Parts: sequence; structure tokens; C-alpha cells
Amino acid sequence: MTAIELPREISVVNIGLPLFADAIRAQGRPVAQVEWRIPAEGDTDAIAALRRTYGTRTAAIDKANAEVVRRLDEGVPQLMGIEAAASVLPDIDDRTVLHSGPPIAWSDICDPLRRSIRAAVMAEGWATTPDEATALVEMGSVRLEPANHHDTVVPMASAIGPSAPVFIVDNAAGGTRAYAPINQGPGQVAWFGMETPAAVERLVFLRQVAGPLLARAIAGSGPIDIFSLVAQGVQMGDDVHMRTQATNNLLIRHLLPQLMSLGGTDAQALAKFLAGNHLFFLNIAMAGAKTLTLWAEQVDGSSVVTSMARNGTTFGIRLAGSQSHEWFTTASPPIGRALYQSGFGPDDAAPDIGDSAVLELVGLGGPAAAASPAVAGFLGGSMSDAIAATEDMERICAGRSTRFKLPILGFRGTPVGVDVRKVVETGITPRINTGILHASAGTGQIGAGVAEAPVACFREALLALSNRPPAG
Amino acid sequence: MTAIELPREISVVNIGLPLFADAIRAQGRPVAQVEWRIPAEGDTDAIAALRRTYGTRTAAIDKANAEVVRRLDEGVPQLMGIEAAASVLPDIDDRTVLHSGPPIAWSDICDPLRRSIRAAVMAEGWATTPDEATALVEMGSVRLEPANHHDTVVPMASAIGPSAPVFIVDNAAGGTRAYAPINQGPGQVAWFGMETPAAVERLVFLRQVAGPLLARAIAGSGPIDIFSLVAQGVQMGDDVHMRTQATNNLLIRHLLPQLMSLGGTDAQALAKFLAGNHLFFLNIAMAGAKTLTLWAEQVDGSSVVTSMARNGTTFGIRLAGSQSHEWFTTASPPIGRALYQSGFGPDDAAPDIGDSAVLELVGLGGPAAAASPAVAGFLGGSMSDAIAATEDMERICAGRSTRFKLPILGFRGTPVGVDVRKVVETGITPRINTGILHASAGTGQIGAGVAEAPVACFREALLALSNRPPAG
Repeated sequence: MTAIELPREISVVNIGLPLFADAIRAQGRPVAQVEWRIPAEGDTDAIAALRRTYGTRTAAIDKANAEVVRRLDEGVPQLMGIEAAASVLPDIDDRTVLHSGPPIAWSDICDPLRRSIRAAVMAEGWATTPDEATALVEMGSVRLEPANHHDTVVPMASAIGPSAPVFIVDNAAGGTRAYAPINQGPGQVAWFGMETPAAVERLVFLRQVAGPLLARAIAGSGPIDIFSLVAQGVQMGDDVHMRTQATNNLLIRHLLPQLMSLGGTDAQALAKFLAGNHLFFLNIAMAGAKTLTLWAEQVDGSSVVTSMARNGTTFGIRLAGSQSHEWFTTASPPIGRALYQSGFGPDDAAPDIGDSAVLELVGLGGPAAAASPAVAGFLGGSMSDAIAATEDMERICAGRSTRFKLPILGFRGTPVGVDVRKVVETGITPRINTGILHASAGTGQIGAGVAEAPVACFREALLALSNRPPAG
Repeated sequence: MTAIELPREISVVNIGLPLFADAIRAQGRPVAQVEWRIPAEGDTDAIAALRRTYGTRTAAIDKANAEVVRRLDEGVPQLMGIEAAASVLPDIDDRTVLHSGPPIAWSDICDPLRRSIRAAVMAEGWATTPDEATALVEMGSVRLEPANHHDTVVPMASAIGPSAPVFIVDNAAGGTRAYAPINQGPGQVAWFGMETPAAVERLVFLRQVAGPLLARAIAGSGPIDIFSLVAQGVQMGDDVHMRTQATNNLLIRHLLPQLMSLGGTDAQALAKFLAGNHLFFLNIAMAGAKTLTLWAEQVDGSSVVTSMARNGTTFGIRLAGSQSHEWFTTASPPIGRALYQSGFGPDDAAPDIGDSAVLELVGLGGPAAAASPAVAGFLGGSMSDAIAATEDMERICAGRSTRFKLPILGFRGTPVGVDVRKVVETGITPRINTGILHASAGTGQIGAGVAEAPVACFREALLALSNRPPAG
């Protein structure tokens, strides 16, 4: 009888759960661990939908996605000017108030957004107290609409009335135009869910002072290539969502000749406002991004997300090819990795809110985390934490930016074009860099952090796509 | 007879020349290479000087160096205002022109600096043509002095007359005050070695327009903490020598309320000048650094460099404890790793010039290369090239900045305090991020790059230190 000879050298490739690999490593033998998880966490409906959107349809969807990524990456948004919302926005009347996120009934709106809507109503002069404003809304005298349905994006708990000044941004290549209000700055402000007299006064200041003066400055400068400034800002530590400081200052330097020629006491007030507002550029970048998603959403048969917005109650997405206002929504998530101001914590925090996640669709914010030492501070403190956030986004995106480059990653482009197939398959959802508001006290911003989008709405979008007949 | 059994497994540690290690590696055997070179390249005088400044004197010199590093790291330079040089600089008369670098006779001055001196003479109104200016200098009617001898630092081929406006910077902790002229900006400018009417006109503009208006703006703002802005700028991609864009824009945003209240056509000219000058902050940072080296050089018995400056002909350093104007000089080096504007190359380039290397003494410029994607572009293109430049500086510095942090290196501080012992021992000299001027044509800047300081002057400084009686 011959003894069976066991091999002396054992090398192992382990696929899936790492426990087995760890055990082999503990015995001093080489082992290669292959990351693998059951797709879609074993959700059979989702796996079936993945089968239908890969396989024979892979090529068609990938082709549509490539065109979507091209539009998101190549469009050149230009800041053209500032006008009152009523005079430029499509399909609004003189009693419309636009809010962040997907459509929602007043009864379901969260506390910070309610306060902001009331502040907008008071700034319009329709009511003088929050209670009067509530009454007007409840009797239907104010029409509430998602800003996104009017080619407009508004950050955090913003709400804007017809007289609010809005930035006008054009993407000439795609023939699309989008809008965003002027960022309200720090302090007692409605976009942070406040309705104090100071918050209302800030809205009036934007309409009466900042809007007209900035309109003159922009007219004097001529159209401004927004993403040229953004691309420089990404080299200077901005993710251009949570942090826009560098891009902001580039804009101020660009406009310096026009700003220094304004003159008068109003210009003094504007100067103070601009010098103290680190997020002034945020809304301009958002409007720029929206011109690109408006162009991209005209492509049929793509699995790439072209709207992503939150109203503090629901989190919603839309896919390219769904210009019908078809939202896939689920509950707004909490903001997981966060830094809070002293005295506040997760129990005080409102859920994720605002249209600013449009930035994450074009390669900014979460995808650009690795550009930003400041954002790294919210993600664990080291640049490797920020790199991990960017790399998560790479795993669920269809392409790469050719203009937003990450120095720390060998100047490779930020990931662009969130593919619902990849989101559902991996269970990784977009990382959104964002602020945090108080859930109920009306005291404004209490922190900032990184939200992970909920997977449920991506799953719904994938199921709907998989059941649609193939495009074209 | 027993055969000698050779070992079957060979592992090698190789010290010194890597050729032997490469040969072993080529045969597939493991080898650890230890970097080691003969100290000071075997220069016996230098090795003797190293013996005298280490050994029994190590503790005393290290203690002095720690105090020097503390002063370079902890001083808080504040921008106080702007005045005419003659009214504030120590020991200058109404015919003094200050130039960059160590002392030098007119006959030895390089072409770009000669042109700049003539431009300063014309801007003062003492001459109307370059030839007249030359004649005045040659007959001794103009007194040429190194700016460094008057607590002043001037970048590139700058020269300033008594009427030139200078920034006044105070370091309250050290009781030191330093000065720098207003940066002249891009284009036809004397600090790039030009003497055209436009270059002279720019100097007059600085005196008549920019100086008085900026003085008003700074007075309105109150003292400005220069290195607080610089610390932010380092997080935003500035090395604050070759690139000062982010820090610049932070200053502009800080001064925005004052700038927007100036009014008038002069303010328009200033706005255009500021909006187009990426290096406006350079000179302010230099004056800030100079307040710290003036404080540090009061420490006796240190081996740390407290002056480093070039006049385009000679490169000179001074050590802490040598307030006697004792320079150690050698020929100015070429700028090795460089990018040239189209049509120019190394043959057209003037040697390294300017007082801006004061920045490399306080943890900026070369030591901060790893902060700057833009600087990386001059060093090979990748961030690892920039990291290598910073790491070279770490090998020759006595300490670390506690305020200038490098995100890409785990937020560790930039190296501070160039130790001549380490320079001579390793043969690594400071890396200086700098611009490049045309050597003879008077056509201004033709490129930018990184100069390696020549080792000879560090060797001389070490020999002098080693022959001095120990301090204290």
C-alpha cells in the first residue's frame, strides 16, 4: 500500500468570506483573498433584474451610458446672469414656492424645510408670521413644487419664491439651461431650516441687494466658465460640495474688477456677505451640474442616474431617459459619518436633505473626496479615508471625468455617472458630502458629514429599467 | 576529504554602492540595499569639521538649533501696513538702491539685475534712460546695497529705490520687523530683469496707485496674520513660493470689504492688477519669513542657516549667530529641473536669483513641494516627485513645522531649519522653487523650476562654525 503524498507547499486563493483566508494566513501559508459577495445580497428580484440588464442588453445599455457620461463630462456650463425666478423659470406662477428634493405633500414635509418654506412666504410679503404662512400653505394658496421640476436645484432646506433671484446657467453644447438661487451664507438662514426675522431678512437682502449687484458684476465680466474654475478648485482641495472655498475665491478674484467698480453702501454689504460666505460657489456649481444632467437625461435606455435629491423626508433618484418626472424614492437616510458642533449629536440631526447631490452625479462631492484634506477631516482624518470614499464611487460609476483630476491618485479623473446596476450589484451607494440641520428646533446647521444614499430607490429604478423594452 | 558544503539559501545586505546589490538581484536572490555614501564625498577638511561639530559639541549645537527652529516655527508675522522704503528701512539714504542676494560690485552684477537696478533708478526720476542710469551707478552716485542688510527681502531680480512702497511686517514675539516691496506682477516688469518704459511705469504705478490704496485697505482691515493665511494655502496646493495662488485669493477675500470701499479710477487699476497677479502674496510671505530669520539669527552657536539669497552671480548663506553680515558665497547655480516657455532652454537661462529662498528656511517652497500639484508639474509631473523633494529637505532639516501640514504625508509638518552639518554630510542641498529669467536679452521670465543650492557655501559655513569657539 502506497502512502498518499500530501503536497508540501500550499498556496490558497480564497473567494468570498475572508474568515477562511484569515485562518490559512494564521498558519503562515500564503493566501490570496478575492473580494466577492453574493450580488444584491441575494435579493432574487434584484438578481433577476441584473440578469435582464446585463447579458444581451449589456452592450446597448453600456452604449447609452457612454453617451450619458460623455454629456456629464463634456458639457461646458456658463454662468450667464441673475434674474428673478418668476421671470425666467419654466412653468411657475406667482404663487409657486420651489423646494428641494422629490415631490412631497405639506403634511409629510420635515421641520427644517417647513420653516424654510414659511421664511420664503414671508420674504415674498404674503405673510408676516410663520403661523400666517402655514395657514396660506394649508389652504392651498401657495403651490409647492420640487425645484427639480423647473430645471432648478436648491441646496439643503432651501425654498424659493417667485421673486427670489436665481443664477442662470447655459450649457450651449446641449442646449440646456438650469437655475439655482444665490447661496444664503452662514448664520440665521432659511436654507439651514430657520424662519427667524434675520433669516427672512437675508432672503430680502439677496433679492434687493446681492442679486442686482451680482447681476451687474456678471454682466460686466461676461459669461463665466463654471467648470473651468471648478477644475482648478479640485486641484486646490475642494470637493466642490462640502468645501468650495478655493473655487469661491477664484470666482471672487475673477470678478474683482467688476466688484471694485460697484461702489456705494450696498456694495459694502455685498462685500461683507461675500467675504464671509465659504459656500457662495456651491449653488453656482449645482446649477452647472444641473445643465449637464438635463442634457444627459435625454438619452434613452441608460442605467445612469440623472437626478438625485432629498427633501429631508424622502430620497429620490431618476434615470436617464425618464423625463416624465418618474422618481424612485425611499426614506431619507441619516448622515452616518459626521462631525457635530459642540452640544449636538445624531439624535438632533434631520435626515439628509437638499438637491446638492446633483454634484455627486458629475464627479464632484463624494467622487472628489480624495481631492480634499478638509473633507478627509469628516471621513476619519487621513487622506486614505478620503481616497476610500472616492474609490467606493469608482466601483459604481460608468466613467471618469476628463477635467476633474485627483493629484493624490496620479491625477486620474473623478468617477462620473452612477450606474444603478453597479449600485445594486455591489450594495455600494453614492457617498454624498453634506451639511446637517437640527431636526426640530429651528436652530440651523449643527454639523456636516457624509451620507450614504439608501439602496432601495436604486433597486426600484433597476427593476423598472429591467422591465422596460430595450431602447431604440 | 570532506567536501565544503556551500549554503543553499543566500540573503544579502549590501551597504553603499548599489551595483553589487543589483548583481545579486539579477541572480534572483533576495538583497537588502542600505543607502550609504562616504560622508561629504570624502572631503577630509569637511569630515574634520563634521567631527568637530558633532561629538562633544553635538548637544550644544542641537540645543541652539532647537531654539532656532522654535523661532522659525512659532513666530507670528503680522502685516501692519505699507510705507515708502526711505521712511521706514534702517540705514538707507536718499541715493540707496537695494538689490537681491549677497553684496556684489556693479561690475559683477548679472544682466537681469543690472536692468532692474536701472529701472529702479529711472522710476526714482534720477535718470531718464538706461545709459544715464548706468552712468550714475558707475560714478558712485547710487549706493548699491543688499536688501538683506536692511531687514528687507526682494524676489528674483528686484531692485528698489528709496521711494518704493514696502510692506511692513512685525513679529511681536521676537520684536523683529522686516520689509518687502509690492510684487510687480507679470508682463514687462523689472523684477524679471526688464528696463522697458512699461517696466518703469509699473514701478511708478506701485508707488503712486497700488501702494497708497493697499495701505488704506490694510489699515482698514487691521494687522493680518500672514502665516495663518499661508497655513490654509498649504492645504490648498500652494508651496507658497513658486505657487501662491490660494493664499493670494484668501488675502483678497479677507480684504474684499476694504477693497470694495476704495472707489475711483485708481481702484479700477488696482483691481485689474490684483486680479491678474498670481504671485501678489509672494513678497508678503517673504517679509513674514524674514521677521522669523531675523529673530532666529540672534541665537548663537547654531548650525542652522538663517539667510539664503542669490544675486544671479553669487549664492550666499549666513548662519544663526552671525549678525555681522558674514556671508558664505559661491557661484549661483543653474536651475536644473525646469520647464521653459516655448522657444527657450537652459542656454538662455540666467543663474538662480532672488531673496525668495528665505521661504525655504521656514518650511515653505521646496520643503512644502509635497503640498502642491502645480509644483509637482515642474518636478516630473507626479505627486511622488514632489514628495521626494520634500523628503530631501527632511534629510537636511533640524525640525518640523507645527503649522504647515502636508495632507499627502499624513499631515506631517514641512521640514524647517536647514542644518549645514546635514547638508555637508549628505551632499543634499536645499531645493528652491523659483522662476527663470533670460540671461542677457532683457525679455523677462522664460520658465520656472527647482534649483539645487550649491554645496560649497554650506561647506565654508560649516568650516567656519567648526573653528569658532563653542557658544555659551
